[in-house]
Amino acid sequence: MKELTYYLTEPVPETPKPQEKAEPWTETKIVGRPEPRVDGYQRTSGGAIYPSDVNLPGMLHGAILRCPHPHARVTSIDTSKAEAMPGVHVVITDKTPGADIPWYESSQRGDSRLFDDHCRFEGEAVAAVAAETPYQAWDAARAIEVEFEVLPFTVDFKKALDDDAPIVWGTTNRTRDARTYERGDIAAGFTAADVVLEETYNIECQLHMPMESFGSVAQWEGGKLTVWHSTQGVYPIQQGLAQNFGLPLSHVRAIGHYVGGAFGAKLWTGKYSAIAALLAKIAARPVKLFVTREETLLCVGNRPAVQMRLKAGVKRDGTLVALEMENLGSGGAYSGSGTGSADFQTRDLYLCPNVRTVSHDVYINAGEQRPMRAPGHPQNSWALEQMMDALAEAIDMCPVELRLKNIPTVSQARGDRPYSTTGFKECLEEGAEEFGWSEAREAEAANGHLKRGVGVAGCLWAAGAGGPPSTAVVRYFSDGSCNLNMGASDIGTGTKTVMAMVVAEELGVPLERITIEYADTGTTQYASASGGSKTVPTESPAVRDAALNCKSQIIKMAAGELEVPAEDLVLENGEVRSTVDPDKSIAVGQVRAFRASQVVVGVGYRGPNPEDTVTCPFAAQFCEVEVNTLTGEVKVLRFLGAHESGRVMNRMTYDNQIYGGITMGIGLGMTERRILDSNQTGKMVNRNFHDYKIPTALDVPADISTVAIDLGDTFNTTGAKGIGEPVTIPTAPAIANAVYNAVGVRITDTPINPTTLAAKLAAKREGRG
Amino acid sequence: MKELTYYLTEPVPETPKPQEKAEPWTETKIVGRPEPRVDGYQRTSGGAIYPSDVNLPGMLHGAILRCPHPHARVTSIDTSKAEAMPGVHVVITDKTPGADIPWYESSQRGDSRLFDDHCRFEGEAVAAVAAETPYQAWDAARAIEVEFEVLPFTVDFKKALDDDAPIVWGTTNRTRDARTYERGDIAAGFTAADVVLEETYNIECQLHMPMESFGSVAQWEGGKLTVWHSTQGVYPIQQGLAQNFGLPLSHVRAIGHYVGGAFGAKLWTGKYSAIAALLAKIAARPVKLFVTREETLLCVGNRPAVQMRLKAGVKRDGTLVALEMENLGSGGAYSGSGTGSADFQTRDLYLCPNVRTVSHDVYINAGEQRPMRAPGHPQNSWALEQMMDALAEAIDMCPVELRLKNIPTVSQARGDRPYSTTGFKECLEEGAEEFGWSEAREAEAANGHLKRGVGVAGCLWAAGAGGPPSTAVVRYFSDGSCNLNMGASDIGTGTKTVMAMVVAEELGVPLERITIEYADTGTTQYASASGGSKTVPTESPAVRDAALNCKSQIIKMAAGELEVPAEDLVLENGEVRSTVDPDKSIAVGQVRAFRASQVVVGVGYRGPNPEDTVTCPFAAQFCEVEVNTLTGEVKVLRFLGAHESGRVMNRMTYDNQIYGGITMGIGLGMTERRILDSNQTGKMVNRNFHDYKIPTALDVPADISTVAIDLGDTFNTTGAKGIGEPVTIPTAPAIANAVYNAVGVRITDTPINPTTLAAKLAAKREGRG
Repeated sequence: MKELTYYLTEPVPETPKPQEKAEPWTETKIVGRPEPRVDGYQRTSGGAIYPSDVNLPGMLHGAILRCPHPHARVTSIDTSKAEAMPGVHVVITDKTPGADIPWYESSQRGDSRLFDDHCRFEGEAVAAVAAETPYQAWDAARAIEVEFEVLPFTVDFKKALDDDAPIVWGTTNRTRDARTYERGDIAAGFTAADVVLEETYNIECQLHMPMESFGSVAQWEGGKLTVWHSTQGVYPIQQGLAQNFGLPLSHVRAIGHYVGGAFGAKLWTGKYSAIAALLAKIAARPVKLFVTREETLLCVGNRPAVQMRLKAGVKRDGTLVALEMENLGSGGAYSGSGTGSADFQTRDLYLCPNVRTVSHDVYINAGEQRPMRAPGHPQNSWALEQMMDALAEAIDMCPVELRLKNIPTVSQARGDRPYSTTGFKECLEEGAEEFGWSEAREAEAANGHLKRGVGVAGCLWAAGAGGPPSTAVVRYFSDGSCNLNMGASDIGTGTKTVMAMVVAEELGVPLERITIEYADTGTTQYASASGGSKTVPTESPAVRDAALNCKSQIIKMAAGELEVPAEDLVLENGEVRSTVDPDKSIAVGQVRAFRASQVVVGVGYRGPNPEDTVTCPFAAQFCEVEVNTLTGEVKVLRFLGAHESGRVMNRMTYDNQIYGGITMGIGLGMTERRILDSNQTGKMVNRNFHDYKIPTALDVPADISTVAIDLGDTFNTTGAKGIGEPVTIPTAPAIANAVYNAVGVRITDTPINPTTLAAKLAAKREGRG
Repeated sequence: MKELTYYLTEPVPETPKPQEKAEPWTETKIVGRPEPRVDGYQRTSGGAIYPSDVNLPGMLHGAILRCPHPHARVTSIDTSKAEAMPGVHVVITDKTPGADIPWYESSQRGDSRLFDDHCRFEGEAVAAVAAETPYQAWDAARAIEVEFEVLPFTVDFKKALDDDAPIVWGTTNRTRDARTYERGDIAAGFTAADVVLEETYNIECQLHMPMESFGSVAQWEGGKLTVWHSTQGVYPIQQGLAQNFGLPLSHVRAIGHYVGGAFGAKLWTGKYSAIAALLAKIAARPVKLFVTREETLLCVGNRPAVQMRLKAGVKRDGTLVALEMENLGSGGAYSGSGTGSADFQTRDLYLCPNVRTVSHDVYINAGEQRPMRAPGHPQNSWALEQMMDALAEAIDMCPVELRLKNIPTVSQARGDRPYSTTGFKECLEEGAEEFGWSEAREAEAANGHLKRGVGVAGCLWAAGAGGPPSTAVVRYFSDGSCNLNMGASDIGTGTKTVMAMVVAEELGVPLERITIEYADTGTTQYASASGGSKTVPTESPAVRDAALNCKSQIIKMAAGELEVPAEDLVLENGEVRSTVDPDKSIAVGQVRAFRASQVVVGVGYRGPNPEDTVTCPFAAQFCEVEVNTLTGEVKVLRFLGAHESGRVMNRMTYDNQIYGGITMGIGLGMTERRILDSNQTGKMVNRNFHDYKIPTALDVPADISTVAIDLGDTFNTTGAKGIGEPVTIPTAPAIANAVYNAVGVRITDTPINPTTLAAKLAAKREGRG
């Protein structure tokens, strides 16, 4: 998996083109309505079978023994005790035939082995067991006797480039040369500015914490491997496992029905995936291997902490003239990218002629980063959107006004190509209006120790347009019910519901008569992984094309039978009828040619995006907080998300995405951080839900409202852009800005919690802040 | 399910046409080779998961309480004891809400209810139970207290029309008016004959006995039903269950991977299918319900016994001039068809200008008929082919010669349309040559009590051409491996292997790189049920079309990249190369457009058969027996099957079909019969494998050879006709003719066993025979 390429679509000539001509919808009957999930019953009744629910006859359970040190070398392993334990079928180490698999965890360096005797982080896989129960497997894993040579470690990324820092790989902890982006003349920009501000912002490392853990059930039949995998994309799993085991692609079937949450870390094949398959192969039994919650916290991915120095120059009229940013971050021991995309909004969110960004990436002895809901963007936003707030104050301008002054119409970082639509202005204006921004800003400050404030932050998400390839198949049965076949995963966002609505819209079939087969390399069409907020914009045009293809075949069949021109016919509720002559109609099941074929198969493809424009979602979020100036506690009272993500396909799942994204942003800003003991052990000290705090219902305001901005973007045939990622980008800085508005204290380092805020308030009271 | 329509294809206009132009193969690399099953490893290792192997979490087990009387009325049911038993979740009767489902077991009359209080045969379903273990379910079923009013019964079909016979339905046991077929002038025919013979033949009822029993595992998710069903066709199951439960077709998913044998009785939805689904619905748990072997013998179908009076007239030169046949049979209590197709070969196998057949069908209080490997044909053959033997003797002609004299070139029963090919002559001539027929006939009779003889019998199968609709999809992956998606079941005949060979032939992909997704209404294309020897002729042209469609897309993509005309390019082993310029080649995975789409999807359809011809398979079988004249034991020494079934797609599965068909024919002729106690109880007395004898390995000769006659039929694009049914049609009369040849005793009634033969031999010795 190359860095972030999963959401960057490269135009490729000659991909299959849509079969049917589709005009943009002018009016819709189904699409856009608030529709509950088509699989809501299954999800809430317990009927939905998630990969971790899969149980197969004779299935064993896998467990992985992991290195307890941040940096160590395995000097010996003795598996004999473990092998003799009850229920144990297989114990594997790097010495086991077939286990000596080279492993490339990510794009930069990081080449190791499936079980590597050089352990570069706490949690490195050392050995694995398959036993009849999970308890037997874990017990046996613990009974494997390993001798480690403990090595000096580096876990503080800010010290990774120090002369005396222990080295993770090779001769330097730099993962690559510093990356520089530059346009205009940065020095001239600052010279032209009326006000220049500079600040260093720090954002802590946030861990992936989906409800369902990471793993799979693996089963071999002869030389063929089937895995039920909690994943965002079955095709990457198929490719990863085929490569690991030297199998033809057709011999790996990855099934990904239902996923208990995924935010980027389930985009690819983990070591746990390969280990499950390997244990199953050697044991000749199916093996289930889902990592424990502790392993999730240690090993399966995070949003990297980034230190961001941002310097900005603005004219007194609000014109931004210079932005300079220097970032330092770490993707852990196995990813070279700690700062990826953490400068993108600095480059592209606001009009600014003079921009320079420099990014430094280092290795540390810690678990790796994986893409996490808008990689880099929330980090970037934490700095940029607080800086915008500070600039506005410095020139005595409303923060909304300052942003409106600098709204882009072209993508400055992408050849100045125009955006297909830029709803940022409407997000700010309509959001502020709906939120009551002005009134709240001007409200008299309360006396007493509880202070209220409001904050705003904007964003764009660098991707969100989607693109080819995608193939979808719609089967229309003789009773007017339908089956949609698509390869994409529904990672909890409601993809299936949206796609069913597209089919319902075009074929006049009630939603409840549509079933969906999805996310199975054995049975469904190719789709790229669900990530990058590109699933709906990628898949929905292909699904629409398939439905239209179905419809045109059915109407053609009926036209022959009714002796009516096809253009006079419509298909609805299992009936084809003439719009001209009300006597001319026929139930689909009565059409002779249809009766003969029983099922009409429509195939559809996603066409390319226009090359001359750039498509991105934009957003503005507004919030109000109450700060207890005695304790430093911050209560988020209300939030509003104003989002321009093209057509609103399903207002209910659209709103749900905003609620979820804001919740995750509250976690990033206020409660979450990975703590590594950089002084003594190098180990993670908050590896459980008690110590690593994700926001609870009490941390999230009941009052979250949404404003949907739809400007009728026609860059694809459904007009949908991504919504899943922008919803979480500006949340944390909006809170920080509201805190500043309430109490005049700027929180540059996450998390915004009583410990940090009470100290700052005290300093301020004492004239130190 | 209408009588036998499953194999009769009616031409329908406007069915989807093949996408690609396909010439008949002139030379093949893969097709025709003897290839072991592509799923051989799974089938022999135990890895294959048959429907009866499916176990789901929380699954319950179902059992059915059946009426123990051949004819009775339920006067009361008390389920209270059963409901209180350990592990019991649900007990259902006709009074249970949702269980009051009307039921039409077959085409004629026979309308009843799922649980009918009027029980018309021993085995009628009265109530059902779902419990945690099968044992608990069976125990609870037995604990249901039912009071029956026992009614008088009719189980002997020959007495069903007697004045005093108890009536099964309505006012007469006739299921329908006698059916008459007539051509020419039968009286004139007999007048013109030099020899006229008349004989009455009786063939006993043969029971369906596949290795895997009948049933399913049913699971509901909300309003959607999934069943894993041992079936010959998932779409009929989908339709049956959708109708029973008032569901949209899209809400019923029938999965039929692997079937442990099926010979016609698994073509449709049984009461056990609906009961499993109903138990699962009420229990809100998955339910497995496979009937026991005893229930299989009682309830799930049979090949009806038929009494056949056959009168034939022949000229001394061997010209057949008249055939008159009167048949009487019973389909049991729920099928009106006991004699279906039991006159078809009399009408059509031999040239004969004057033919008249009359068929009488009656109800009896017994388990129903279901289609069984060439319905009606083996019965017909038992009479016709023994008659041909007798006619040949009467005019002192070799039996092979007599048949050769009367070989048809047109289908006399189907408007005198010509057969696309008629290989009957070649089957007889080449079969006789290979068997050493003349030598064996002329061999000196052995002295002593062991006498040897040889026999021959011919046949046609009325169907075997297949026809539309069928859709197939081939997905070609970027590494040159493939997945074939088709709706058809592989009922053990090797369908998957043959279809993989077609894909391999066209796409140059090794067989082991092809996987197959099949027989799943949720994920695969529409296919009619696998029956009537039509699966290969129906599906293989659609699969070939899909593969060709894939190939043409790939070659078009590569042509653009290589800048070579598409017609100069071939696809093989994942590479497209020019046949003109050896330097021009590219791996499929390197073609940019392919890389972008990752998978190329080829869709194919089965085109219609020519309307001006008739296509059928023909065959001749030869056997040699040894008769122990003291005991009446008959040992089948060797068999030869000479079959014309169009192109031999896979010589190994082709031969296997012949071995299996002959084995089943030996059972029909020599060991199998249902015995109903017509005097006292009306019950079946041989309801187990000890008393109902299917042939064992010791009953089947090790020496079975095959002769494949391929005349290059081009009625479809692969040239394949059906082989599954003709292989069993002529076996029994060939044995009877061989016995006659050995000892001069004609066995007109099955089974040919020591009891019947010893008596006849004794009578002959004593001048009575």
